[in-house]
Amino acid sequence: MFLFLYERIDVLLLCDSVFEIKIDDARYWRDCIGSIATLVDEGTFNISKEGITLKAMDPSGISMVSFSIPNKAFSKYEVDKQAAVGVSIENFNKILSSARNSEQLSMKDSGNKLAIEFIGENSRRRYKLPMIEVKKEADKEPKIEFESQVELKSDPFKEVLKDATSLSNLIGFKTEKDNFKISAKGDAAELEEEHAGNTDFVKKMSVSKPSAATFNLEYLDRIVRTCPQGNTVQLSIKTEEPIKIDYKIGEASLSYYLAPYMLEN
Amino acid sequence: MFLFLYERIDVLLLCDSVFEIKIDDARYWRDCIGSIATLVDEGTFNISKEGITLKAMDPSGISMVSFSIPNKAFSKYEVDKQAAVGVSIENFNKILSSARNSEQLSMKDSGNKLAIEFIGENSRRRYKLPMIEVKKEADKEPKIEFESQVELKSDPFKEVLKDATSLSNLIGFKTEKDNFKISAKGDAAELEEEHAGNTDFVKKMSVSKPSAATFNLEYLDRIVRTCPQGNTVQLSIKTEEPIKIDYKIGEASLSYYLAPYMLEN
Amino acid sequence: MFLFLYERIDVLLLCDSVFEIKIDDARYWRDCIGSIATLVDEGTFNISKEGITLKAMDPSGISMVSFSIPNKAFSKYEVDKQAAVGVSIENFNKILSSARNSEQLSMKDSGNKLAIEFIGENSRRRYKLPMIEVKKEADKEPKIEFESQVELKSDPFKEVLKDATSLSNLIGFKTEKDNFKISAKGDAAELEEEHAGNTDFVKKMSVSKPSAATFNLEYLDRIVRTCPQGNTVQLSIKTEEPIKIDYKIGEASLSYYLAPYMLEN
Repeated sequence: MFLFLYERIDVLLLCDSVFEIKIDDARYWRDCIGSIATLVDEGTFNISKEGITLKAMDPSGISMVSFSIPNKAFSKYEVDKQAAVGVSIENFNKILSSARNSEQLSMKDSGNKLAIEFIGENSRRRYKLPMIEVKKEADKEPKIEFESQVELKSDPFKEVLKDATSLSNLIGFKTEKDNFKISAKGDAAELEEEHAGNTDFVKKMSVSKPSAATFNLEYLDRIVRTCPQGNTVQLSIKTEEPIKIDYKIGEASLSYYLAPYMLEN
Repeated sequence: MFLFLYERIDVLLLCDSVFEIKIDDARYWRDCIGSIATLVDEGTFNISKEGITLKAMDPSGISMVSFSIPNKAFSKYEVDKQAAVGVSIENFNKILSSARNSEQLSMKDSGNKLAIEFIGENSRRRYKLPMIEVKKEADKEPKIEFESQVELKSDPFKEVLKDATSLSNLIGFKTEKDNFKISAKGDAAELEEEHAGNTDFVKKMSVSKPSAATFNLEYLDRIVRTCPQGNTVQLSIKTEEPIKIDYKIGEASLSYYLAPYMLEN
Repeated sequence: MFLFLYERIDVLLLCDSVFEIKIDDARYWRDCIGSIATLVDEGTFNISKEGITLKAMDPSGISMVSFSIPNKAFSKYEVDKQAAVGVSIENFNKILSSARNSEQLSMKDSGNKLAIEFIGENSRRRYKLPMIEVKKEADKEPKIEFESQVELKSDPFKEVLKDATSLSNLIGFKTEKDNFKISAKGDAAELEEEHAGNTDFVKKMSVSKPSAATFNLEYLDRIVRTCPQGNTVQLSIKTEEPIKIDYKIGEASLSYYLAPYMLEN
């Protein structure tokens, strides 16, 4: 049984302000939204003078993403007053996947639509994405006092997740002083990996208390897959509590929470 | 509702002559037939002393292709008298897809079959493709006095079609003096592009009267996809009439007609 | 109708010994097992002091593989007494597909499981694969006095099989003095190839008696596909008898038998 992170709450879309935002590399913004879209099909961007944030749950309710990017990541950032822009993340992602090399991107509100413009040297593509009322909101992150922190290199971690996927749909993490264990058990075979700290894979570890928990492998794989190549992924673990997965995409911060898998009694 | 370009007419296969044709680059011929196969599953080649032509409709009847290649494109071209060779374009395409680098190709009639031979340095592969009676013939091209001509670079045009495909199954073209608009509307979002003439994308434009029409995007995408890289595609447009799409593959000329999509009243 | 190579015999798994085997290149072992997995879903490895062998039939019973590798292929080879280790080849293959560049591999028995360990510079991945009782055993190879031997380069042979696959699900081989013919007949078209001996494709031929037989193309394609690039494939043919296909993967020898396809009377 998966624990639900939150009760589902209906929230109203509020949007009575004006903003105009520009980013120099449309593909960078595509990657950011792609990392949200891996879990979430709709969500509300909170656009304030400081930057843009989004907190959203996946449709099944076992995971959430908390995204934030500061205003300095944009080449133009004009926000008259705080706006809440709910959109289909799936459709936003589709539009952004058309970003071409060396295109700029502009976003502004236009009635009840988000006007998106790709600005190339000789062409302009304009998309309009309807704003929607997002039903499942996740307005706060779970408060957990994590027992262990493990910093992993993203590329070998992706390979481990891929290996485990062929055997099982669950993955277990276990931390001990200077020792990080990954296990996956399937009908076909069992996998167990043991890693010391300070290696090519585990960059850093800090364990205040040994901890162990098991997670849905497909979700974890989707979360980590969009971490840029060569980056690090930070895992925060507490026994039988949700895991927190953090990484950066340039200036943007992504934090994911994934509920633990609990054996039914 | 799609307009049908032609009524379907049953035509008899006539083949009482002898021909022997050779081409130096089997892969070039593969590309030509591949561009026909993208729309059409069977068709009749008209083999005359001057060259080879084929006119054929797609099974749904909303599009047709007119193909022609002059005799000078072939290294050997012996045609005793005019022949009509009906074949499964689908199967012809399968056979040609086996063309290997630096193979020559020979085609001749052999009873009621088309004998195809790939001639490599040390090997010969011989295929026999049955001749068939083609049911759906398209013996003439629609006569349309087009209002606008737009010459596009094929590679960015393919990208535009790909982008639009993720949003909609229809695409609209609109020409004005020195302005070419592409639009695609879907439930998820709307796309609008505006291009000036004489750019990296629109190479030439001539508009005698502003025109607008909407087309099936999947068909258009298939038609343009087989245009060789780096080529230009010519669009001929008249409001609410079939569009004509022309491009060359080496010496071969391909003209496609695609019926407009009309909103039902 | 396909001839069955053997009657199906139930055999008991015997495993009361201890072995520990290491190989320097985990990917090499992955390729060996991959060549078995292409046909067979489970099988029993016979581990003796001299080396490892496996004979197994595919689930349909129309083909078998005989695999053998000498002890010298391994960097560590400790076998106390002969062991029979039955496993799911499919699952073994899945585990081995996770082999990474410059990893070593260790295999030993651990209770009723095969303990597999990938040893990288900084990490160890341990898998446990359950041992099973293999139902379909193939303990001896068919005895056939072949009439023709044809040695082919694997890469063009793979291309021929791919071409034929698009036309037919059967392939015919015919040998004559210094002439090797391949044919595939389908509803769509017919393919015929003729090759002289001592060419870039047919490296050697010896024909004591002209022979001809027809085989299931999908099986043949799967058998040949796992032959390493640049290798040679040896065909042994006798009219209307199973074909034998031999190739090497490094020190390992693979012999496949495939029953002929017989037209029903």
